[in-house]
Amino acid sequence: MRLPAPLSVCLLLSIAHTTLAQSWRPPAPSERCPSKWGADDERGAANHVTAAQVLRAVRLIRTGEIVELGRVLSSDMPMAAGRGFDLYTKRTNGPLGANKRMSNEEFVATELGQVGTQFDMFAHQGIDGSLYNCVPIEGTATRNGFTRLGVEKIGAIVTRGVLVDIAGMKGVSSLDAGYEISVDDIEAALAREHVALAPGDAVLFHTGWGRLWGVDNTKYATRSPGIGVAAAEWLAKQDVLLFGADTGPVEVLPNPDPQVDLPVHQIALVVNGIFLLENLKLDQLVASQSYEFAFVVQPLKIKGATGSTVAPIAIR
Amino acid sequence: MRLPAPLSVCLLLSIAHTTLAQSWRPPAPSERCPSKWGADDERGAANHVTAAQVLRAVRLIRTGEIVELGRVLSSDMPMAAGRGFDLYTKRTNGPLGANKRMSNEEFVATELGQVGTQFDMFAHQGIDGSLYNCVPIEGTATRNGFTRLGVEKIGAIVTRGVLVDIAGMKGVSSLDAGYEISVDDIEAALAREHVALAPGDAVLFHTGWGRLWGVDNTKYATRSPGIGVAAAEWLAKQDVLLFGADTGPVEVLPNPDPQVDLPVHQIALVVNGIFLLENLKLDQLVASQSYEFAFVVQPLKIKGATGSTVAPIAIR
Amino acid sequence: MRLPAPLSVCLLLSIAHTTLAQSWRPPAPSERCPSKWGADDERGAANHVTAAQVLRAVRLIRTGEIVELGRVLSSDMPMAAGRGFDLYTKRTNGPLGANKRMSNEEFVATELGQVGTQFDMFAHQGIDGSLYNCVPIEGTATRNGFTRLGVEKIGAIVTRGVLVDIAGMKGVSSLDAGYEISVDDIEAALAREHVALAPGDAVLFHTGWGRLWGVDNTKYATRSPGIGVAAAEWLAKQDVLLFGADTGPVEVLPNPDPQVDLPVHQIALVVNGIFLLENLKLDQLVASQSYEFAFVVQPLKIKGATGSTVAPIAIR
Amino acid sequence: MRLPAPLSVCLLLSIAHTTLAQSWRPPAPSERCPSKWGADDERGAANHVTAAQVLRAVRLIRTGEIVELGRVLSSDMPMAAGRGFDLYTKRTNGPLGANKRMSNEEFVATELGQVGTQFDMFAHQGIDGSLYNCVPIEGTATRNGFTRLGVEKIGAIVTRGVLVDIAGMKGVSSLDAGYEISVDDIEAALAREHVALAPGDAVLFHTGWGRLWGVDNTKYATRSPGIGVAAAEWLAKQDVLLFGADTGPVEVLPNPDPQVDLPVHQIALVVNGIFLLENLKLDQLVASQSYEFAFVVQPLKIKGATGSTVAPIAIR
Repeated sequence: MRLPAPLSVCLLLSIAHTTLAQSWRPPAPSERCPSKWGADDERGAANHVTAAQVLRAVRLIRTGEIVELGRVLSSDMPMAAGRGFDLYTKRTNGPLGANKRMSNEEFVATELGQVGTQFDMFAHQGIDGSLYNCVPIEGTATRNGFTRLGVEKIGAIVTRGVLVDIAGMKGVSSLDAGYEISVDDIEAALAREHVALAPGDAVLFHTGWGRLWGVDNTKYATRSPGIGVAAAEWLAKQDVLLFGADTGPVEVLPNPDPQVDLPVHQIALVVNGIFLLENLKLDQLVASQSYEFAFVVQPLKIKGATGSTVAPIAIR
Repeated sequence: MRLPAPLSVCLLLSIAHTTLAQSWRPPAPSERCPSKWGADDERGAANHVTAAQVLRAVRLIRTGEIVELGRVLSSDMPMAAGRGFDLYTKRTNGPLGANKRMSNEEFVATELGQVGTQFDMFAHQGIDGSLYNCVPIEGTATRNGFTRLGVEKIGAIVTRGVLVDIAGMKGVSSLDAGYEISVDDIEAALAREHVALAPGDAVLFHTGWGRLWGVDNTKYATRSPGIGVAAAEWLAKQDVLLFGADTGPVEVLPNPDPQVDLPVHQIALVVNGIFLLENLKLDQLVASQSYEFAFVVQPLKIKGATGSTVAPIAIR
Repeated sequence: MRLPAPLSVCLLLSIAHTTLAQSWRPPAPSERCPSKWGADDERGAANHVTAAQVLRAVRLIRTGEIVELGRVLSSDMPMAAGRGFDLYTKRTNGPLGANKRMSNEEFVATELGQVGTQFDMFAHQGIDGSLYNCVPIEGTATRNGFTRLGVEKIGAIVTRGVLVDIAGMKGVSSLDAGYEISVDDIEAALAREHVALAPGDAVLFHTGWGRLWGVDNTKYATRSPGIGVAAAEWLAKQDVLLFGADTGPVEVLPNPDPQVDLPVHQIALVVNGIFLLENLKLDQLVASQSYEFAFVVQPLKIKGATGSTVAPIAIR
Repeated sequence: MRLPAPLSVCLLLSIAHTTLAQSWRPPAPSERCPSKWGADDERGAANHVTAAQVLRAVRLIRTGEIVELGRVLSSDMPMAAGRGFDLYTKRTNGPLGANKRMSNEEFVATELGQVGTQFDMFAHQGIDGSLYNCVPIEGTATRNGFTRLGVEKIGAIVTRGVLVDIAGMKGVSSLDAGYEISVDDIEAALAREHVALAPGDAVLFHTGWGRLWGVDNTKYATRSPGIGVAAAEWLAKQDVLLFGADTGPVEVLPNPDPQVDLPVHQIALVVNGIFLLENLKLDQLVASQSYEFAFVVQPLKIKGATGSTVAPIAIR
């Protein structure tokens, strides 16, 4: 059973009568295309992954300790509306041969690009019919994936990772649902950590919302604290490679401006070619106060896909 | 459409009348259990991934160049009998909000643990009813995965990688179907590369068979050169973490002894707790003569699964 | 997202301390095998569908009116734990040709034998390792269906249908959850309807529970009124072809004896070779007081399957 | 593994240089809408299924013999490009309770509306962006089915069935691939059978092509004899309810005019609101020379689907 039609839509409608100043409208195609990485580029900020960038990351490794940042994939994890994860064991038909070999496998049916700890690729989001670099959805979307901007174009990402512990800076175990992380918040958290962002960084925001994972999945999936429009545009100016969080959408849900629906997804993926990393498990990183580390993620090379479930790590 | 019943069975039957000396029979439970990692261990050779081992790997990084070792996942890749990979685009229902957001995703139906470039976990293989560490299949296998020995127990592997270029040592572009790699072959290749194996290594065999990927998928999937019983037992003695190849089964297919069916799978996964890595893309590593490197693979944390499709890398 | 582990198990455990007289235990293999239809029979009561039986049914048709007895199949219908129904539109890749043809289809992932209005076949249920006619599960169950007792063995069923309106006889809109329909209840309802059962009948019980379908799916799927052990054994003595109801399990859930789990499924499918028909939509039949009619159901010919979702009809 | 991109496209391209007189172009929206069944109609020729029509069919039943017209659903049946049928056994997790109940089911992943013996609904086919009754695809197609013209709108069909044995009339066991059945052929076959068509009939064409089912699936699925444009338009004039055949597409494949792609699908489903019934098993009907019979088919009530796999019958 998949969950019904997007809750975000419902939330949007329920508060649509509130009057607010217009917070953000997407830039026109002429303002956002061609991308700074070139008119034919399909990799966006993944172009930051150069040998020099890899060496910069590797130099941060001191103890050799691996910190896992991915959640376990199972049917009972929190998922956005309309998504599921179903695994069926295909038990052995054996034993085979004189060695009595038995062989099990499993069949999995899932929104593979968009469940669990998850990396968002450009085919995932559009603005009024077009994707990153103004690639049109029509003619690019086929029944079996996208002919351009699929996640198989990215490859592994090895770069410097930075943990921005907003909850820690605020002195709370978790930010509240609907809390919009501001630029000031980010700067205050970085100052507290004695860290500065640099181009090509993977920036991971700790909100504390991840405590609800497996505890109150409905609450986890319905609303969350997160990045707002101003912070997203500031991050884009810092020229980061990706940003992620211990929440489903990374961005604040619902947006304080009820007229816009998940605008940070557009700012990151469509306007700036920056990736999002969702549903991170950050408790161990926070507990060890690891603010700077080598960050490695290997998106599956799913042809034409809008993203990939992943199992990223920090290496300290 | 999935492919019909295992070809390996057919091949086995077709040559079952040949009389050969008995090559290998699985050890009795008392001879293989408890595992050297302890009676309750579920991680086998993944216990090699210590901070010291990570640092050993990291020190091999010189240029920061990433070499991708994974294949693109698509419906037309070679697959073993009975497996498939089907991706269906779920196009946007938008545009949503004043920001005209559009959101695409995909539904994937596949043997997620056992397709593409792929990491084999212990729940995958058994000997007459029991798995690694003599865990019984009955009572551990449920409809929705295994309660023990699932791939979510492993975590990321960062270790020293060694390329063993058997085809290069032989001076051929590809070994022949059915060619059994011997211990002498491995030692000759390592000598040519001026490399020695060490405990915890990820050992990747280049057979050249990968040239058939996407070129002649039927040939690729039906037979292959690979590791035989003697080489597998030798590798286990070297205490390696995993071994893999640019073929489907890593091991020679069919086995020269027609009475045994994929015995190397049992020797590695069931008897010794060593992982297999299948369908590697090794051409770039071979071309650059990278025989020693940092190796990183992040199996998806699929609860109770027999393996994971992966996108491993070498970092030079 | 599929629902978690069987609720029936939880219910069973929660009341397991209650002491009750032993209500029913399954007969030993020697008592139930061979089936009265022969030791090799795989069709059980479907053997009732003879040309004479078809003519008997056809003679009941008077007005030619069709009454639909099937529910709409969709992802939001009530389903037992662990089942789902997911449909993904595969939109056209066209237009194709000078005629600008466009072609849509859909991918469906579901427990096809066991969702919606649904016909239960013998492979569905067993007693301690064996199915109808003492066919063992081990050796018959393969990864891809059963080699014996699959639903493709049955064919269409055309027979006399009888509506037994228990709720109507009781003068209630719906029986209560957990209400066990007795033999007296059935006889009283038949007397009120001036109808008697005959061998080969399809007997449909109206409990009124169907009012909850789409209204309170959780309540619908968790408990229900229905046939108990005594009524099931009486129905078997009447030599009926199938019995069904406007509930999920047809039988009372939970069983009044907390030590037995869905015993009517075993009495019907395993012991007597009689089929079950679940989740019927009976309101229209009840409203028109159609107690006797031609009944037609066409199970899909799914090779090796435990049942089939269906769309049966009554013709008056 | 699904088959690659539509073969029909390849065939079309391969012969696109042939010059032929223009055979057919779709009528403009103003010429085909509203449908003769009304501007809001979603059921087309299913409106023929009245009580009177049912009685007309029932009166044809003489012996009570049921003839099955459906194929067994399995992974190795012939399928059009991009479609599959995969079934995975979910074996019991039992035994449960003192009655040691065991319960098996299966997970099926398939293009449920478009595999096996199969009923085509209006959402399946369009002309340049619009469906039957000029319903636009855009805005009607959602990720999870169509909001209009889904197969759940139809209900069971009980009507007079007519077998038109074209192969028999021609004195051949099978028509050739690419043979276009003409109006003269149909009239000659009907004369030989002493049968005339009437409004609301289900017309089943025997081509003999069904002999290839399970014998040469590739040949079966790639090309076939069948109805052409002229015969389809003549059938529409006879006001039939549906027409079907013992082939995949019912219509001739490829079309003799290489510029049009499956035009009979558009003539039936989009222009005239007439259904198609594909992959029928007609051998038994032919062998018994049953030219007129009661025909019954129960499409699954799949919400928003483009069709349904079915198991139709003739009753003689």
